[in-house]
Amino acid sequence: MRAVVLKNGRIEVTDDAPCPSPGVNEVLVRVLLAGVCATDLEIVKGYAGFEGILGHEFVGVVEEADDKTLVGRRVVGGINIGCRECAVCVARGPEHCEQRTVLGIKDRDGAFAEYLALPVSNLQQVPDDVPDEEAVFTEPLAASVRILEQVPVPAGARVGVVGPGRMGMLIAQVLRQSGATVTVLGRSETSLALARNLELATALVASYPDDSFDLVVEATGNDAGLAHSLRLVRPLGTLVMKSTFHGKANLDLTKLVVSEITLVGSRCGPFDEALQLLQQGTIRVDVLVDAEYALVDAVKALEHADRPGVRKVLLRP
Amino acid sequence: MRAVVLKNGRIEVTDDAPCPSPGVNEVLVRVLLAGVCATDLEIVKGYAGFEGILGHEFVGVVEEADDKTLVGRRVVGGINIGCRECAVCVARGPEHCEQRTVLGIKDRDGAFAEYLALPVSNLQQVPDDVPDEEAVFTEPLAASVRILEQVPVPAGARVGVVGPGRMGMLIAQVLRQSGATVTVLGRSETSLALARNLELATALVASYPDDSFDLVVEATGNDAGLAHSLRLVRPLGTLVMKSTFHGKANLDLTKLVVSEITLVGSRCGPFDEALQLLQQGTIRVDVLVDAEYALVDAVKALEHADRPGVRKVLLRP
Repeated sequence: MRAVVLKNGRIEVTDDAPCPSPGVNEVLVRVLLAGVCATDLEIVKGYAGFEGILGHEFVGVVEEADDKTLVGRRVVGGINIGCRECAVCVARGPEHCEQRTVLGIKDRDGAFAEYLALPVSNLQQVPDDVPDEEAVFTEPLAASVRILEQVPVPAGARVGVVGPGRMGMLIAQVLRQSGATVTVLGRSETSLALARNLELATALVASYPDDSFDLVVEATGNDAGLAHSLRLVRPLGTLVMKSTFHGKANLDLTKLVVSEITLVGSRCGPFDEALQLLQQGTIRVDVLVDAEYALVDAVKALEHADRPGVRKVLLRP
Repeated sequence: MRAVVLKNGRIEVTDDAPCPSPGVNEVLVRVLLAGVCATDLEIVKGYAGFEGILGHEFVGVVEEADDKTLVGRRVVGGINIGCRECAVCVARGPEHCEQRTVLGIKDRDGAFAEYLALPVSNLQQVPDDVPDEEAVFTEPLAASVRILEQVPVPAGARVGVVGPGRMGMLIAQVLRQSGATVTVLGRSETSLALARNLELATALVASYPDDSFDLVVEATGNDAGLAHSLRLVRPLGTLVMKSTFHGKANLDLTKLVVSEITLVGSRCGPFDEALQLLQQGTIRVDVLVDAEYALVDAVKALEHADRPGVRKVLLRP
């Protein structure tokens, strides 16, 4: 099958990748559409030491399954596959299982391919009225909803989202919908155009006053963005780190301790709630698509996605 | 009066410091005993840019007050003095007031002196059965109790305290008393002797397995200790930063995000609860005293306190 393979630090599109063989309790999914995420770009640069087929954001159709009623269903899928036996898996699910594999990220081939394999229990059926072009946002939208599971966001909470990129735009919309007063902060007026289109309040990050927000979400993934995020959160406030950081970063620990800031790492979230939001139509994802490429042009697509200010790039097998 | 003054990066004992004049609602306290804290040593090295009389841990006697019934009472005192008018002060007290002064740390002369001035509302009377040598630990003990205000510590929670110093020993005892299963981690067997004397479980930090604790408290104040602390906390666990960090440090943000760690900065705590603990006699502080110096020998005392492995050094005016 056709697939985008990372090996020895190089990405390559091949037509000769073996079609995945689903394991016990797994199904074969034909990929309809996949999305390029910042994490994919970090993985290409060496984050996580992954080799294999890239990609973890997708919508697809069940092609083979032991339960024949599943065949033909349109699905999205949770990306963590746990051992299902350890205390972590039993208590909380696969996201933090030590033995887990992660679709296109850790020890499991991913979604930039014609087919992928996932356990049945990872799948969520996509409602008919959610088109592929929206369903492909389920994974990053779930990751945005994850913030609400981790941190109390009372109505009227002053929230700053640092980083007006594709992830920041999902986070800002989710938190606005939960009743927070959201400001999106970026490095330039140009970078904030999309946020303004979504009728989000915007501001330049560098000139914004210290200690302005009850909650700040870091969605840039770079040191400067992180430094601003910590600067902007008020004493006793919370800073959520939503970006994939590759390795170490310098953090102003004096402020963290003296102002008793809480810093929360945040990763994967609930697919069912994300699909509900997409079905309700209250979160705009259509405006987040920058370009769509055929899978055969994946190298170009990844280069495109890595340019500053670029929104979501989709891959169609 | 005699006092220990920091000026132009040098500490000096003088006999000619002006006695503080208490402001409105303030009292004059004669210092009976003061304690040297790691923060004092950081301040001498330039942390916080403070100049003036050092010191914030003390027990004393009210010498002058508008309310004459206070005179003669033995007291300890909260170190933060807020404006008492801003929203922060009204809602939560002075600890995070933007206009605050802090005894011996920020814009207010401190406790390494014969006298100090503090607002009446900062004072807590010391029970008669708590001797000066224990009451002088109220401030750091309150800071340890602060952790329980910030973070849930369920009975049986696996807690690691990284750093077997004077602060670590208070924290470990407080968390053990709250029902947690506490292990104190240090760099060498020698550094762990005191913890063993207190019948705390101990271990060498370098060889301890990753992801071992539900809650880790960082009490070393150095980069290596912080790195180990983050390494030792389990996925979805909490890392409390209890040390004064001077400036920036490198933090493994990959683990923080992927394992969804919560990092909590922690500073000042409740004096009333700390005094209760001292009165109950369940927290051993006597064994934490390394040496006592006369105030006139403060330069020597601070040098002593800055040596590795040294416990609490006291100053007696």
